[in-house]
Amino acid sequence: MFELLKVDPNSKARLGRLTTAHGVIDTPVFMPVGTQGSVKALDPRELREMRTQIILGNTYHLSIRPGIEIIQEAGGLHRFIGWPHPILTDSGGFQVFSLAKIRKIKAHGVEFRSHLDGSLLFLGPKEAMATQRALGSDIAMAFDDCPPHSSAPREMRAAVERTIRWAKECRDQPLAPGQLVFGIVQGGASATLREECARAVVAMEFDGYAIGGVSVGEPEPEIFKAIELTEPFLPADLPRYAMGLGTPAQLVELVARGMDLFDCVLPTRVARNGTAFTNRGTVSVKAGFNKADFRSLEEGCECFACRHFTRAYLRHLLNVNEILGLRMVSVHNSHRYQKLMTDMRKHLAAGTFEPFRREFVANYVPSQRVLSARDAER
Amino acid sequence: MFELLKVDPNSKARLGRLTTAHGVIDTPVFMPVGTQGSVKALDPRELREMRTQIILGNTYHLSIRPGIEIIQEAGGLHRFIGWPHPILTDSGGFQVFSLAKIRKIKAHGVEFRSHLDGSLLFLGPKEAMATQRALGSDIAMAFDDCPPHSSAPREMRAAVERTIRWAKECRDQPLAPGQLVFGIVQGGASATLREECARAVVAMEFDGYAIGGVSVGEPEPEIFKAIELTEPFLPADLPRYAMGLGTPAQLVELVARGMDLFDCVLPTRVARNGTAFTNRGTVSVKAGFNKADFRSLEEGCECFACRHFTRAYLRHLLNVNEILGLRMVSVHNSHRYQKLMTDMRKHLAAGTFEPFRREFVANYVPSQRVLSARDAER
Repeated sequence: MFELLKVDPNSKARLGRLTTAHGVIDTPVFMPVGTQGSVKALDPRELREMRTQIILGNTYHLSIRPGIEIIQEAGGLHRFIGWPHPILTDSGGFQVFSLAKIRKIKAHGVEFRSHLDGSLLFLGPKEAMATQRALGSDIAMAFDDCPPHSSAPREMRAAVERTIRWAKECRDQPLAPGQLVFGIVQGGASATLREECARAVVAMEFDGYAIGGVSVGEPEPEIFKAIELTEPFLPADLPRYAMGLGTPAQLVELVARGMDLFDCVLPTRVARNGTAFTNRGTVSVKAGFNKADFRSLEEGCECFACRHFTRAYLRHLLNVNEILGLRMVSVHNSHRYQKLMTDMRKHLAAGTFEPFRREFVANYVPSQRVLSARDAER
Repeated sequence: MFELLKVDPNSKARLGRLTTAHGVIDTPVFMPVGTQGSVKALDPRELREMRTQIILGNTYHLSIRPGIEIIQEAGGLHRFIGWPHPILTDSGGFQVFSLAKIRKIKAHGVEFRSHLDGSLLFLGPKEAMATQRALGSDIAMAFDDCPPHSSAPREMRAAVERTIRWAKECRDQPLAPGQLVFGIVQGGASATLREECARAVVAMEFDGYAIGGVSVGEPEPEIFKAIELTEPFLPADLPRYAMGLGTPAQLVELVARGMDLFDCVLPTRVARNGTAFTNRGTVSVKAGFNKADFRSLEEGCECFACRHFTRAYLRHLLNVNEILGLRMVSVHNSHRYQKLMTDMRKHLAAGTFEPFRREFVANYVPSQRVLSARDAER
C-alpha cells in the first residue's frame, strides 16, 4: 500500500508511493480541498492539467448538502463529482467542532445543530465511518476531537482521551472496498499528550496517520513543534498527513520533518481575494503596479493562466469582478502548490532536497494576511 | 470581404463567409458578449472548444475600466484579453443611452456621467471610432442614438436624424488596419423611419449593416416587424447584424428573415441564475426534479459540461453557490447557441433549412422569465 522509496540523509524528508483504489499517489503530495464536492472555481480538467493526484472531500458539508443518499445513488463521490482519481474524505470532526454552533459532546459522538438550517444532527465515529463508506473515498479519516489552540490543559487531555476512544470505535467499523483509513493524533502543544495519543492510535494499526490540532490558530513555531513532538512515534513505513497546512515555505519545512500528505484551503481562498502565490511569497494581483504590467503572473510558470494572460488583464478582471479573474488566480495558485510538490519529489529523488529547502525557505517571504486567511472557516 | 454562398429558396436565410483581419467567419454566426473583456465565466479555450468564431467587446465599459490607454499599451484588445480571433466592438451608444444616468445630447455626441464614479464623460461618433480604432477590433460599429421602445414619434424621428448624421461622422473617421465598420439602422416600429434611415445609412457604403433599436423592451412580434421593415433596404451582398438578439427560436426566425450576425447576453446571463437552454426551451437546473437525475443537462449534447457532469451534481453546485456550477451552465448554454448556428449553417448548405426551422420553432417553448432577463442592463 505504501512504499517508502527514499529518505533524505539530511532531514526526515521522504519520497514515497501510496497505492489507493483509484490510483497511485506520489508523495509528498498536496491535496486541493473540495469541501462541497468541488475545488473552488476549478474543474477536474484544470486540476489534472496541474498534475493534481488526489483531492479532499468534506463529510460534514456533503452530508448537509446534497445529502449522502444522493451521492450514494450516483454511485459514490467519485462518480457524483466526475473525479475518477483518488479522494480523501475528512471525518467531519473538525467542522463539528469549529462550524456547528450548539453542540453537546456525548460518549459516542457530538450532538450539534446544522450551521445551515439549525436542524439537530449527530456525528460520531460510527456515523462518520458509515458516511465515508457511503461516499466511497479512497482514504477515510477517523473521527476525532479537535479542540481550539486556546483550550485549557484539562480540556486538551479530555480531547485526547476522546480521540483515542473514538479512533478505536472507527477502527471497528467496516470500510468501503479497497478503502484505507488513517488515524489522527491530537494533543496540542503538549509533549506528553502527543506521545500518549500517538502510541495509543498507532497501536490500532491504521493504514496511515494524521497529525491534527495543528493550524488551529497557533503561531508557526508551535505548528512545527507539534509535528516534531508527534512524528517520532509514527511508524516510518506508513504515510503521514499534516492536516490543514500550509504556506509553500511551511510545506517545505513539513516535508523536511517527515510529513507526506497535505491539504490546505489557502491557494484557492486567497485567489478569490486577488492574492497570488509565487516562489518567493504572495502578491496582490489588484495592486496598482500591475496596471500596465504585461508579464505573466509568475515568470517561468507554465500554468494555464500564465500561458494565456497578463498581470494587467488579470488585475482588470478582478477589479471588475469578472469570474475569469478569480478562476485564473485559483488556477495559478493551485498549480504553484502542485509544482512545489513536484519540485520537492524531484529533489528528493536526486538527493538535492537539503540545498533546495535552504534556498526556497530563505527566499520565501511569508505574509501575515495569508496566514490569517487559513484560520478562517473551512 | 463578404461572400454570399447560398440563399434559402423558401426564406431569406443566407449562408455566407465574412473575412476579417483576425480570421474568416462562417455566417449565420452568434457572437458571445464579452462586455468587460471577458465572456462571463468562460475562458478562451472553452469558447474555442464550442466553436466560437467571434466575440463582442464593449467600448463604453472598456473605456471606463481598464481604460483605453492600458489596452493600447498591451497592443490592442485581442492581445489584452488573450483572444487572437475576430472581435466586434460596439460603439458604446447603447450603454450611454441605457446605463449612464445624467446625459445631455449635443450635436456631436452625448455628455454623460460614468455609471461607476459619476465623472463627466463625452462620447460621440469621433470618440467612439477613435476608441474602436485603439482597441483594434475587426468590426467597429457606428455610434448611434438608440431610444427606448416607449419613445414618442417626435423623439424617434430626432433619434433617426441624429443616427444618420452621426453615421456620416463615423464614416469619415480613420480605421485601424483591416478594420471593417458597420452602419446602424434605427427607426423603432415605424416603416417610414426604418426605410429613411436604412436608405441614408446604406448610401454611406459601410462594410455591413446592423439593425438597432430592437430588443429594447418591445414584444416579439414588434422585433420581427422592425427587422422585416428594414431588411429590404439592406444590400444583399453585405452582412446584416441583428443587435442584442435573441432566444434560440428567435435566432432561427431572424436567420429566416435574412440576418447573418447576432449577439446576446442571454446564454451566460441566465446561466448565472441556474437556467439552462435546451433545444426545446429552458429548464431550471436548481429545480427539485433534478435532485437525483444523473443524466447530462441535455441528452446528446457534446459540451464540456454535458460530457462530464450530471444534472444532480450541477444542481448541487448551484445550490451551494460553487462557481463551477454557474461556469458549467454558462458552458452548456453558450455551446447550445453555437451548436444551433452550426445546425442552421448545415441545413442551409444542405437545402433543408425550411423543415429544420419549422420543426425547431414548433418544439421550442419560450419562457417569459428568459425574455425579460434579456432586457436588463447589458
